[in-house]
Amino acid sequence: MQFHLDGYKPGDPFVSDASSHVGQRAQDEALPGHVDVLIVGCGPAGLTLAAQLSAFPDITTRIVEQKNGPLRLGQADGIACRTMEMFEAFNFNERVLKEACWINEVTFWKPDEKRPENIRRHGRVRDVEDGLSEFPHVVLNQARVHDFYLELMRNSPNGLEPDYSRRLLDLKIDQSDDADYPVTVRLLRTDAQHENAVEIVKARYVVGCDGAHSAVRKAIGRKQAGDSANQAWGVMDVLAVTDFPDIRLKAVIHSAKDGNALIIPREGGYLVRIYVELDKLNANERVSSRNITCEQVIAAAQRILHPYTLDVKQVPWWSVYEIGQRICDRFDDVPEQAAGVRTPRVFIAGDACHTHSPKAGQGMNFSMQDSFNLGWKLASVLRRQCAPALLHTYSAERQRVSQELIDFDREFARMFSDRPALDADTNMNHADGIDPKAFQAYFVRHGRFTAGVGTHYRASVICGESDYQRLATGFTIGMRFHSAPVIRLADAMRVHLGHAGKADGRWRLYAFAGAGDPLSATSGIRLLCDFLVRSPDSPVRRFTPAGLDIDSVFDVRAIFQQGHRTLALEKLPELLLPSKGRYGLRDYEKAFCADLDNGEDIFELRGIDRAEGCMVLVRPDQYVAHVLPLRAHQALSDFFSAFMLPRS
Amino acid sequence: MQFHLDGYKPGDPFVSDASSHVGQRAQDEALPGHVDVLIVGCGPAGLTLAAQLSAFPDITTRIVEQKNGPLRLGQADGIACRTMEMFEAFNFNERVLKEACWINEVTFWKPDEKRPENIRRHGRVRDVEDGLSEFPHVVLNQARVHDFYLELMRNSPNGLEPDYSRRLLDLKIDQSDDADYPVTVRLLRTDAQHENAVEIVKARYVVGCDGAHSAVRKAIGRKQAGDSANQAWGVMDVLAVTDFPDIRLKAVIHSAKDGNALIIPREGGYLVRIYVELDKLNANERVSSRNITCEQVIAAAQRILHPYTLDVKQVPWWSVYEIGQRICDRFDDVPEQAAGVRTPRVFIAGDACHTHSPKAGQGMNFSMQDSFNLGWKLASVLRRQCAPALLHTYSAERQRVSQELIDFDREFARMFSDRPALDADTNMNHADGIDPKAFQAYFVRHGRFTAGVGTHYRASVICGESDYQRLATGFTIGMRFHSAPVIRLADAMRVHLGHAGKADGRWRLYAFAGAGDPLSATSGIRLLCDFLVRSPDSPVRRFTPAGLDIDSVFDVRAIFQQGHRTLALEKLPELLLPSKGRYGLRDYEKAFCADLDNGEDIFELRGIDRAEGCMVLVRPDQYVAHVLPLRAHQALSDFFSAFMLPRS
Repeated sequence: MQFHLDGYKPGDPFVSDASSHVGQRAQDEALPGHVDVLIVGCGPAGLTLAAQLSAFPDITTRIVEQKNGPLRLGQADGIACRTMEMFEAFNFNERVLKEACWINEVTFWKPDEKRPENIRRHGRVRDVEDGLSEFPHVVLNQARVHDFYLELMRNSPNGLEPDYSRRLLDLKIDQSDDADYPVTVRLLRTDAQHENAVEIVKARYVVGCDGAHSAVRKAIGRKQAGDSANQAWGVMDVLAVTDFPDIRLKAVIHSAKDGNALIIPREGGYLVRIYVELDKLNANERVSSRNITCEQVIAAAQRILHPYTLDVKQVPWWSVYEIGQRICDRFDDVPEQAAGVRTPRVFIAGDACHTHSPKAGQGMNFSMQDSFNLGWKLASVLRRQCAPALLHTYSAERQRVSQELIDFDREFARMFSDRPALDADTNMNHADGIDPKAFQAYFVRHGRFTAGVGTHYRASVICGESDYQRLATGFTIGMRFHSAPVIRLADAMRVHLGHAGKADGRWRLYAFAGAGDPLSATSGIRLLCDFLVRSPDSPVRRFTPAGLDIDSVFDVRAIFQQGHRTLALEKLPELLLPSKGRYGLRDYEKAFCADLDNGEDIFELRGIDRAEGCMVLVRPDQYVAHVLPLRAHQALSDFFSAFMLPRS
Repeated sequence: MQFHLDGYKPGDPFVSDASSHVGQRAQDEALPGHVDVLIVGCGPAGLTLAAQLSAFPDITTRIVEQKNGPLRLGQADGIACRTMEMFEAFNFNERVLKEACWINEVTFWKPDEKRPENIRRHGRVRDVEDGLSEFPHVVLNQARVHDFYLELMRNSPNGLEPDYSRRLLDLKIDQSDDADYPVTVRLLRTDAQHENAVEIVKARYVVGCDGAHSAVRKAIGRKQAGDSANQAWGVMDVLAVTDFPDIRLKAVIHSAKDGNALIIPREGGYLVRIYVELDKLNANERVSSRNITCEQVIAAAQRILHPYTLDVKQVPWWSVYEIGQRICDRFDDVPEQAAGVRTPRVFIAGDACHTHSPKAGQGMNFSMQDSFNLGWKLASVLRRQCAPALLHTYSAERQRVSQELIDFDREFARMFSDRPALDADTNMNHADGIDPKAFQAYFVRHGRFTAGVGTHYRASVICGESDYQRLATGFTIGMRFHSAPVIRLADAMRVHLGHAGKADGRWRLYAFAGAGDPLSATSGIRLLCDFLVRSPDSPVRRFTPAGLDIDSVFDVRAIFQQGHRTLALEKLPELLLPSKGRYGLRDYEKAFCADLDNGEDIFELRGIDRAEGCMVLVRPDQYVAHVLPLRAHQALSDFFSAFMLPRS
């Protein structure tokens, strides 16, 4: 992390100077009459978006929430590798890593062939395939994730705090072209001091992150479609004494006659979450009609775990639910027939547009990825870096990948609920059942999806075609930038290259050097740097506002094949040792070398063409936008010209 | 980290429940009339001690400071590996790692043979020898370390906050045996509201962490003795533009005629600290008499760096000093003739008892180790776990290792100040000079000392004899426990074994299994666990107060040679799966296996005898107290009986 650029400042570098000026707004203060973005709902999707927008002091954001304060105990808990990568960009990953429970291995249990009333372990695999991400899959109560976001927002230049006790009444969109603040929102205050007071806020954009029963979704006339598997499940967080040996591992249990269960160890070393299969429901029956009690859920878990005991001491939280997957056809307010013409003004994200079964652990994770996708786009448009048409890509990208997730989730949930097909030599074989071994194989095969790194956006104005994908086979266009370790040239620091990509709205342009002396006058890296600094066609020159640092829109970094002790720092092109800030101090963190000492050569790991090298363009949400040859200066220029606005 | 043992609690697990009850004491509140421990001085030594004592709700601690608030900008910055290990025990290491500048490599510069007016790089080494510690050597402003301690204290069960604006007037010790609070301290309040008010506090123990001019030291009649090298140095933190290529590495520079310099990169990527050799002083001359200006220090740095330029833009802090090493002969109030008879009541720690030259980076680090050594001893005596005679070991242990540090530091500082002896083929050879290559070799050789892991306590009542050292050659008795990775059996988590050792006043007993089935009825591990649980001679039974968890004084952990997938958790002895807390929940974090998957077998790395296994006893300050055979039950019992008090 870098700080002190504009002079030494004592204190916590994560606390913005401005935030202390803004101060903590009194909770009974009224909302401003006009805002750039109004976020409805303080869940994972809303907070991710608020945290992203709070980085920009020139954008006025407010986030309202129906509840009267921060969440103390949430139901979501799984944090996928991909989400950890995003938390890294938000600078609180290390706190999650420290406090969370890491899921390291998964075991699979099935009925004992000889005594089918007992379960026995039949498989054990690593939870996350080696090398899939530099981060583990962890588990932590959702409320703590909220806490980290709230602290980040509070410390930001905007000192952003949620406005609680506000319920959305209605929302109107002015479709005339000249409306600066086209969305009018009416909110009902629900706290004792202001009960029944109505506030009116006019916004440039409104984002509904208000959950499965989203009022914003209803206001724009979108509907969720989907189905239910008519299967009731119970879930509980327990403090319990058990002799089941895998209580601190993730364990998938198929019992012979008593249904299935999933055990997820939780943070702190004692807490455990148990998902328990309950009754089959009738068509269109809701689980609430069964009046299932916590004692029934515990009893079902005890039956499934037989012969092991489960002595439950405390149940901090429990619930019952029916499995179902539902999704909207579009995630914004633009009607099908006006798509690509009318600019979207209202968006929905998270559970407001798609709901899943909890066991694949995707709800919270996918919701945060929704609004991380939207955040930089809203910021770019509001800051006049990009044309408003960019906003169409939100629904286009996220709706499609959500549909893919729904399809995966339906299959995954089905396999969880199936009865086990026992070995042929027992008399309890179910022809229509699931082979526990097949379930294990499915689990491993789809690990990329559950880790959150399976998302793949199609070619669009912000995702290039794959003409040059061969130059970097490990950085798939449209997928998240898969980080790898490198050595920083100036200080011999081993870092993850992807961690240069912070949630600051900037694009990253990683230039991988080809063969030959990478610092010679005619090397691909030097010619690219010269083009970016000098050519009138350079996106850096065309799209970086005057007076800002040279890396404030495009953060260019170079990676060399050589060991870091063999390259001369003083010969770097000026773009890789740029002068920045009020003092013109040099930024020494733009050049990296392959980590040859530890045998983790990024050129090898990510399939970079060693002869040609290449450029990898990475979006502000960490997705690979394009792979191009180092000398494809015009193609680079054309790519950004398609959606960026020249500096004024 | 473990939490929720006594029931689920929402919120930050690092914030103690009790701390919110205590609340933030108003700064104008008076000190209590009686305290268990009064700490004088809010520097690194004082804060380490306060943080340690704040872990114990049953001990009343106060820390007073002459200044009117927390430090904003401190002069110390180097954080040795050993100090990072201690920060891990205090649970804020990850924050330091994130914010600090990591020192990865060191380069050595000397006059160019052909053009001696220029410097050129002649060597480059890793700053810390591989495997010396799991932590790096980092650099961070002292004020931030203070901030982390202050937050920890605030979140502790005591909600401890310093009492600022208090100057020690005097201190008297009542030598009568029956005095409960034998030390009477008078403090002068210096804030505007209370100017000239005098407070009287009676304390069981007083610790002077009040710096080189310690008032506590004077009050107990101790004097620092030492000498000065009559050499003036300047030091400055700068934001500067330079073409010197190693400005982000630690760089040692010997110039031909203009003296020597040391460059230390600092946190944030832009700030740099430069130590610059200035004038030789006359005997007994103080550097202050020279009236050296910041401009002169900058000019000297510019001359030394020739032909490289240094354009200084901002100097947040600078100072001049003369090299000197001074030390007291004892670190407590007990006169030589009464040593071992009278119980010490007043201690001094940190700069109050020893001062060093800054360049070996030892001042702050060694000071914190002083009070980390003292903290658990005071707590054990105050909590009646140990006899007061234990307190004699503080001065005995720390004075000796401080003297060793002084000797090292004197030599290290001399080599820094020497003129380089050029190669014989140049005409600038100084027969009395230092060969830069020899300096580099010295630097590497003494890396253990500068990393802070060279401290070696002699045999004493709390450090056993080395009769069985051969059973664990990598865990030297009297040196800090050198952590290594292991796999936790219950959850397949890769952890550092040493990180079980938190700053909670507990002893760790690491039992390494020998050959054969480690869970059989006659294995060394099982027999040891049986002895500890059942024998009347067991230290666990004798010294653990009734009603507390079985691991509240001795934290027993076992390490097995087998891979973690091959051992059956359910066969562990009960001591390794203990029931704890109000619900009798099982603690699953007591058993570990060698990390065979990653090829980092702790038995191999630390030279554990695979046939016999062994016990490694580790003190609450992370130092190895003893190595014993697994079956040496009586020796184990005898060791603790020598200084512990049976439970009441």
